[in-house]
Amino acid sequence: MPEFLKVVTPAEALRRLLEALPSEIETPAETTSTADSTGRVLAQAVAAPHPLPAFARSTVDGFAVRAADTFGASGSLPAYLKLVGEIPMGREAGIDLGPSQSALVHTGGMIPAGANAVVMLEDTQRAREDEIEVLKPVSVGQNVLHAGEDVETGEFVLDSGTQLRSQEIGGLLALGVVEIKVFRRPSVGILSTGDEIVGPESEPSPGQVRDVNSYTLSSLVTRAGGIPVRRGIIPDRFEALLDAATLSHREDDVLIITAGSSVSARDITADVIQRLGPPGVLVHGVSIKPGKPTILAVAEGKPVIGLPGNPVSALIVAGLFVTPLLRRLAGMIGPQLTPTVRARLSTNVASIAGREDHVPVRIVVTPEGVLAEPVYGRSNLIFTLVRADGVVVIPPAVTGLAANTEVEVRLM
Amino acid sequence: MPEFLKVVTPAEALRRLLEALPSEIETPAETTSTADSTGRVLAQAVAAPHPLPAFARSTVDGFAVRAADTFGASGSLPAYLKLVGEIPMGREAGIDLGPSQSALVHTGGMIPAGANAVVMLEDTQRAREDEIEVLKPVSVGQNVLHAGEDVETGEFVLDSGTQLRSQEIGGLLALGVVEIKVFRRPSVGILSTGDEIVGPESEPSPGQVRDVNSYTLSSLVTRAGGIPVRRGIIPDRFEALLDAATLSHREDDVLIITAGSSVSARDITADVIQRLGPPGVLVHGVSIKPGKPTILAVAEGKPVIGLPGNPVSALIVAGLFVTPLLRRLAGMIGPQLTPTVRARLSTNVASIAGREDHVPVRIVVTPEGVLAEPVYGRSNLIFTLVRADGVVVIPPAVTGLAANTEVEVRLM
Repeated sequence: MPEFLKVVTPAEALRRLLEALPSEIETPAETTSTADSTGRVLAQAVAAPHPLPAFARSTVDGFAVRAADTFGASGSLPAYLKLVGEIPMGREAGIDLGPSQSALVHTGGMIPAGANAVVMLEDTQRAREDEIEVLKPVSVGQNVLHAGEDVETGEFVLDSGTQLRSQEIGGLLALGVVEIKVFRRPSVGILSTGDEIVGPESEPSPGQVRDVNSYTLSSLVTRAGGIPVRRGIIPDRFEALLDAATLSHREDDVLIITAGSSVSARDITADVIQRLGPPGVLVHGVSIKPGKPTILAVAEGKPVIGLPGNPVSALIVAGLFVTPLLRRLAGMIGPQLTPTVRARLSTNVASIAGREDHVPVRIVVTPEGVLAEPVYGRSNLIFTLVRADGVVVIPPAVTGLAANTEVEVRLM
Repeated sequence: MPEFLKVVTPAEALRRLLEALPSEIETPAETTSTADSTGRVLAQAVAAPHPLPAFARSTVDGFAVRAADTFGASGSLPAYLKLVGEIPMGREAGIDLGPSQSALVHTGGMIPAGANAVVMLEDTQRAREDEIEVLKPVSVGQNVLHAGEDVETGEFVLDSGTQLRSQEIGGLLALGVVEIKVFRRPSVGILSTGDEIVGPESEPSPGQVRDVNSYTLSSLVTRAGGIPVRRGIIPDRFEALLDAATLSHREDDVLIITAGSSVSARDITADVIQRLGPPGVLVHGVSIKPGKPTILAVAEGKPVIGLPGNPVSALIVAGLFVTPLLRRLAGMIGPQLTPTVRARLSTNVASIAGREDHVPVRIVVTPEGVLAEPVYGRSNLIFTLVRADGVVVIPPAVTGLAANTEVEVRLM
C-alpha cells in the first residue's frame, strides 16, 4: 500500500467530504405535479391555505344535537328531541339547530349550525317520524371533528427538504396544492476506467471483462434520488481520463470514477482527481473491507468520488458515501434511516481489528427464527452480492462475531 | 357494526385472499433493457452463457509463476526466476510460462499458460532487468481467481421471480445479458367513492372534501410495483358504483374501492363487490385499528379490495394487503422483508386486546438512543401520517406497551 494512503474511518471520511462542500449549495428547483412527486424533495415550505377539515364533521353515523339537551339521558329516562331533517353528504348542512332539536348526520357529514355534538345511532331510538329518544348523554364536542383539528390556516405543514411519501402527496392534495416546487435531482457522471473493460453488449476477447460498475452505480444513483449520466469506459491513460473527468466535472453535479484495478491505474485516478481543482483529495483510503482504496474529493465545490474497480467494493462503498451525499445535494433534511432486519448469525465471522467489515449475508427464515448467513466467496465477485440480501457491519473494535449473535442486517 | 361483519385477524385475512387467487396466475411478460430494469421481476430463469470470470485472473499486482518454483523461498534464500515479459491488461496473456520463469501481471490481468499462482510485488525484489528474487513461497492457486469461480457455464444464476436490484443488473450485464424478460406490472384500478368527494384541483364547497385516497394509493401501488389507474370519484349510488367497478374489474388486474364513510355507503361498496362475480367477498372486517371495515374479495379470478374511506386507514390497510398482493401478482418469489428501525417507546401506549393496533410514530434520534414517539391525533387525519416515520404494531394479545419498551418501527 503506497505511503500516501492515510486510511481514515468511514464515518470520518464522510464527515470530511460533507464538510468540504459549500455550506450553501444552490440546488435549482423545478415545478412538478404533486400527484407525480413521490420520492422528490420539496424546495419550498408549504403553509395551509385553509384549515383541515375545512368544516366541523361528524365522525360517526348519528344525530347532531346540542349536548346540553342530552345531559342525564338514559335508557330508562331518554331525552326526547325533535328530528328536524337530514344533513346531505357533500353539501352545506342547511339547518340551524334550535334547542331540543336534532338532525340525522352521516360519518363525514357537516355539523349544522347550533349543534355541538353527535349522538351515535346505536344510542338512540326513533320515537316517532319526527322525534328521537336519546339513551345516553354526549359531551360538548363528542363525535365531532373540529374545523382545523388536523391543520390550521397558515400552519406550516411541510418544510423545504422534506422527501415526499404517499402521505405527503395526500396531505398536499387535501389542501388543493396540485403543483409544487421540488429540488432538481443532482446529475451524477459515472466513468468506468480500465484497459480491460468493454461494454456489456460486447463479446469480450481473452483478457477483457464487461463493464458492470457503470450500471450498478447508475441503478444505485437512481434509487438515491440522482440522475446517472454514464460517460463511458476510459482506458488507463492519464490524459484520456483527465479529458473525460474534466468534461463530466463541468457538466455534472457529482463525478464518480471507478478506478482501474492495478495500483498504477489507481494512482492515475488519484492524480486526475487532484487536477480537477481545489481543495482536491480529502480522503485517500478508508478503513473498510471491502473498499479500502476509496478516494473522496471536492473540486471547485463539486464532489468527486474515486471508487475501487471491483464491482462489490464499488457498490458497497457507493452505498456508504454516494447515497448520503446525494441526500445532501438533493436538499433532504432529517436523518437517513437505514432499513434493517434483525437476525442471528448462522456461523462465526472473523474480522480484523481496526477495520470496519461489511459482510454480505443472505437472510434465511427458519422455524427457529431469522438467520443471517454469510455469503462466502473468496473474492468479491458480483454474484456474491446477487446471493446477498444485505450486509452485516462488524465495527473496527470487534475482532469477530460468534455464531448466534443477534445482528442488524442492513438491507441492500 | 352490522352483524355480517365477521372480523378476522390481518394474517388470516391475507391468507384467505391469496388462497382464493387462481394457483397459476398467467402474468404476461415483456422484454426490457437489463440496464433499465431495477425493481422489475424476472419472468425467466437465467443460466450463465459462459463462466465468470471467463479466464483466470490475478487478484494482486505481482508476478505470475509456477508455485513449485517458489517452494522454500525466503528473504535469506530467495528463489531466482527469469522475467519473460509483462501481461498486457485487456489482452490475451500471450506468454507460455516455462519452469523458473515469471511474468509481470497487474490486478485483474490474465494468468498466462503454464502459471498457477501469483507472487505479490512486495514479496519480490528485482535482481536484474530480466530476473526477480522471490522472497516468500506461494501455493498453487494463490492470488489467482479461477475461471468459473463466480459462476460456471450453464449454472442457473437467477430464478424467475427475482426482483432485480443493482447487483442483479450488474451480474446479468457481466454475462452479456443486455435484454431480459420481466413480468408486466399489474394494473390497479382505483375508485374513490363518496358524495362529499371532489377532485384535488377543485375548490370544495361547504360539506365537500378533496380526494386524497386516489393519490396516496396510486403512490403506494407504484412503489409496490404496480401501475395505478385512477378511475375517478363515484357518488354513493349503487348503480353508479357498479358501472365503474365493472369497467375497472374488466380492464385492470386488481380493483381497489375506497368506500364512502357512512355505514350505508360501505354497504353499497360490499354489495357492488359481491356482484362482480364468484367467489366474491372473502373477508368483511379485519381485527385491526385503524382499518376494521376492510373488504377482501376475489371475483372471476381477480382480487377486489374495499378499503375504508378514511385516508389513514386506507393507506395503512393497503400496506398490509395491497403490497403483498402485488408482489404475488408481479410474480415475486421469496419472503417480503419489511424494513424496520429499532427504537424505544417514548411513552406508554394503550391498546385493546383482540385487535392489532397500528400506531403511527415519529422517530426521534436523541443522545440516549432512538425513540419512537406516537403521533397523537384523536382522529385519523392525513397529517397524522405526514408527521409519522412509521408504525409500531401492537399484537392482539397485548393490551398496551410501557414507555421504554424496545419496539420495531415499520418504516412507511
